[in-house]
Amino acid sequence: MVRCSEMKLFISEGTAVKTNRLTGHICLLIICGFSSSNRSVSLFSRNMDQRDEKKNQQFSRNMDQRDEKKNQQFSSPVCVHNPHLDALKDDILYHFNLGTGSHNLEAMFGDVKFVCVGGSPWRMKSFIEFIAAELAMEDPKSEYPNICAGTDRYAMYKVGPVLSVSHGMGIPSIAIMLHELIKLLHHAHCTDVTIIRIGTSGGIGLEPGTVVITETSVDATFLPKFEQVILGKTVVRNTDLDQSLAQELLHCSKELNQFETVIGNTMCTLDFYEGQARLDGAFCSYTEADKQEYLIKAREAGVCNIEMESSVFAAMCKLSGLRAAVVCVTLLDRLKGDQLSSSQEVLHSYQLRSQILIGSYIKKQLNAKAEHI
Amino acid sequence: MVRCSEMKLFISEGTAVKTNRLTGHICLLIICGFSSSNRSVSLFSRNMDQRDEKKNQQFSRNMDQRDEKKNQQFSSPVCVHNPHLDALKDDILYHFNLGTGSHNLEAMFGDVKFVCVGGSPWRMKSFIEFIAAELAMEDPKSEYPNICAGTDRYAMYKVGPVLSVSHGMGIPSIAIMLHELIKLLHHAHCTDVTIIRIGTSGGIGLEPGTVVITETSVDATFLPKFEQVILGKTVVRNTDLDQSLAQELLHCSKELNQFETVIGNTMCTLDFYEGQARLDGAFCSYTEADKQEYLIKAREAGVCNIEMESSVFAAMCKLSGLRAAVVCVTLLDRLKGDQLSSSQEVLHSYQLRSQILIGSYIKKQLNAKAEHI
Repeated sequence: MVRCSEMKLFISEGTAVKTNRLTGHICLLIICGFSSSNRSVSLFSRNMDQRDEKKNQQFSRNMDQRDEKKNQQFSSPVCVHNPHLDALKDDILYHFNLGTGSHNLEAMFGDVKFVCVGGSPWRMKSFIEFIAAELAMEDPKSEYPNICAGTDRYAMYKVGPVLSVSHGMGIPSIAIMLHELIKLLHHAHCTDVTIIRIGTSGGIGLEPGTVVITETSVDATFLPKFEQVILGKTVVRNTDLDQSLAQELLHCSKELNQFETVIGNTMCTLDFYEGQARLDGAFCSYTEADKQEYLIKAREAGVCNIEMESSVFAAMCKLSGLRAAVVCVTLLDRLKGDQLSSSQEVLHSYQLRSQILIGSYIKKQLNAKAEHI
Repeated sequence: MVRCSEMKLFISEGTAVKTNRLTGHICLLIICGFSSSNRSVSLFSRNMDQRDEKKNQQFSRNMDQRDEKKNQQFSSPVCVHNPHLDALKDDILYHFNLGTGSHNLEAMFGDVKFVCVGGSPWRMKSFIEFIAAELAMEDPKSEYPNICAGTDRYAMYKVGPVLSVSHGMGIPSIAIMLHELIKLLHHAHCTDVTIIRIGTSGGIGLEPGTVVITETSVDATFLPKFEQVILGKTVVRNTDLDQSLAQELLHCSKELNQFETVIGNTMCTLDFYEGQARLDGAFCSYTEADKQEYLIKAREAGVCNIEMESSVFAAMCKLSGLRAAVVCVTLLDRLKGDQLSSSQEVLHSYQLRSQILIGSYIKKQLNAKAEHI
C-alpha cells in the first residue's frame, strides 16, 4: 500500500497544476473546457513568478515519477497532502469527536470501501438501515449507533464496508467534514474507497423526483471550478468527478428501471435563496423574468440541477484520490416554482430514490468482488 | 407598526447603496472605512450605467422619505425586502418545517424580543434551559420542545420573549436559517427584536476562554464586506453591526466580572482548515511561518478572532433592520496552535461564558423594561 502524506496533486487531462511552495499557493490553471478561461489565467498569473516556475517543474517531475509508481500498485490509498500531519503526536478530528490518540481508527474503519455522505443526519441514519438490509447485514437489535455520538456537528454510521456520514448544508460545512473524513480514512489505511454524495436539489426542466448523476460541478457562472481561499488568496481547483463511476451508476439505474435518472452538470451555489435565483427569500431584488433568464442560461450550459456542496466535494475528493460521484434527486422544477410545496410523503419518497440506486450499486460491486475472489 | 415588504435598503453612514432594478443587481459602494476600496469600486462600476443612475436617484429619494416616516414610529419592525412575498398564498419556511398556511406564526412568535443563534443544536437547547432559569420561567417539567421537530436541518426553542435557534456551520447554512427567520419574524409582526449570535471561534493573541464582541466582521483579506452572488453576479454588502449594542454587552460583562471580554474585529472565513491557515487539515501547502505571517497581519488589522458565520449574519441583520451582535468565545490561541486539545470540560466551560453574558444582558433589559412600564 502506498502512503502519501507528502505534498502531491493530481494532474488531470487538460489541466495544469502548479504549486508555489514558498508562498504556499496552489494554482490550478484549467487550459481547456472553460468557455472563458481568462479569469483563471489572471488568477494564476497573480501567484506565479520565475522562482516558482523552477520549483513547479521539479514538482511536476516528482509527481510524474510518483504517479508512475502509483499505477504499478494494485490498491489506491486515500491521500492527504499535508507534511505537517506527520509531526502531530495525536491528530484530533474535533468535529467527529474522534482522534488517533483516543481511538484505533484502523480497527474501526480499516475495512471501509464505500462512503455515502448527505446533508441530513436523519437521512444518513436511514441510509445505513437501508443498506444493512440490502446487504443482509442487519443488526438483530436494529441498533446502529452514531459513531460521532459525543458531538452534534456530524453523525456517522457504519455497516460492514459502508460508512454513512452527514455533512450539514453548504460548502463550508461539508468541507470541514471532508477534511476530517479524508484524514480518518488515511489514518485507517483504507484503500480503493468510493465516495458518493446522496443529496437533494432543485431541478431545471426536469420532472420532480428525477435522479441526477453529476457529470461536472459548475459554479454560479456555470464554470467548472471551485475557488478556495488560502491565506487570503484565491486558488482555483478542478471539480471533475469520476466519469466511469457516473456511467456505472447510470447503467445500474437503467437496470433497476424504477425512476428517471440522467447525467448532467450540477450548479453548486453558496446560497439557497438569492444565490439560486429564488423569488421567496427574505430579500429579492430581481423579477420573475430575470430568474427565468438566469435558469435558462444555466440549462443551456448543461445544468440539470442546483445544490450547495458538489464543487468542494469534487475538488477535495479529486485531491485525495477518492473515486467520487454526486447523486441528487430533484425535489421540484425550478422553472415552475421555488417553494417545496409537495407533501412530506412525496418528498420522502423522492429522497429514497438516491438511496435505492446507491444501495443497488454497492450490492452489485460487493457481489462482483466476492465472485472474483 | 410599519410593515415593509416593499423593496428597501438602509443607507448607513459612509455608505452608498444603489439598486439596479432592471437587472436586479444591488450594488453597495463603501466609500469610507476600507483600506482598499478600489475593488469595491470596480465591482460597482461593472453593474452601473446611466439608465440605472436615474432609477437609483429615484430609489434613494424614495428611501429617504421612507426612512423619515420610519423614524417617526416608536417601534421597529423586522423588514423583508421582497415584493414577491405578497403574492404567495402560503409561505413555506421549508428548513424550519413551519409555514404561514400551516401555523399561526403571530400567535407562536409575536412576543419575541430576543433571538439567540448558534451553530450547535445542543448548545441552543442548553441556552434555552439556561435562560429559562435566569428569567425564572422554567417549565416545571423541564420540557423545552424543539419547535422545528419535523426536520433535522435546524433546532428552535422558545421561552417567553426569547427564541433560540441553531444554524449549523458556515455562511450558507446560517444564511438559509436567517432568510427563514427574518420571514418568520416579519410574518409574526415582531417589533424591536435584538438578535445575538453566540458562537465559538479561534482567537489571535488572546487567552483561550476570552469572549470577543465583534466590532466589525471582516473577510479573509481583512475587509469589512460580504460578497453575495445574485444571478451569477457578485454584490458587495456591508457587515456593520450595532455598535451601541456591542458597548452595552461589554458594559454588562464588566459588571459580571467573571471572564475577560473584549471588543474587536472578527474574521469570517468560508473554510475552517486552509481558509483559516490551519496546519492540520487534509491539505496544507504553506509553512508554519506563512501561517504566522498571515495571522499577525490579521491581528494588525484589528482581528481578535476567526469564525465562519459573522459576515452574512451582519449583512442580513442590517438589511432587515434587526439590532445585531456577535459574541464568540475563543477556544484556543491560533498563534500557539491549531488543534482543539483542551478537555471537553474546559471547552464546555468556555462555551458557557457567552451564554452567561447574554443571559445577564437579556435579564437586565427585561427588568429595565418592566420598571419603565
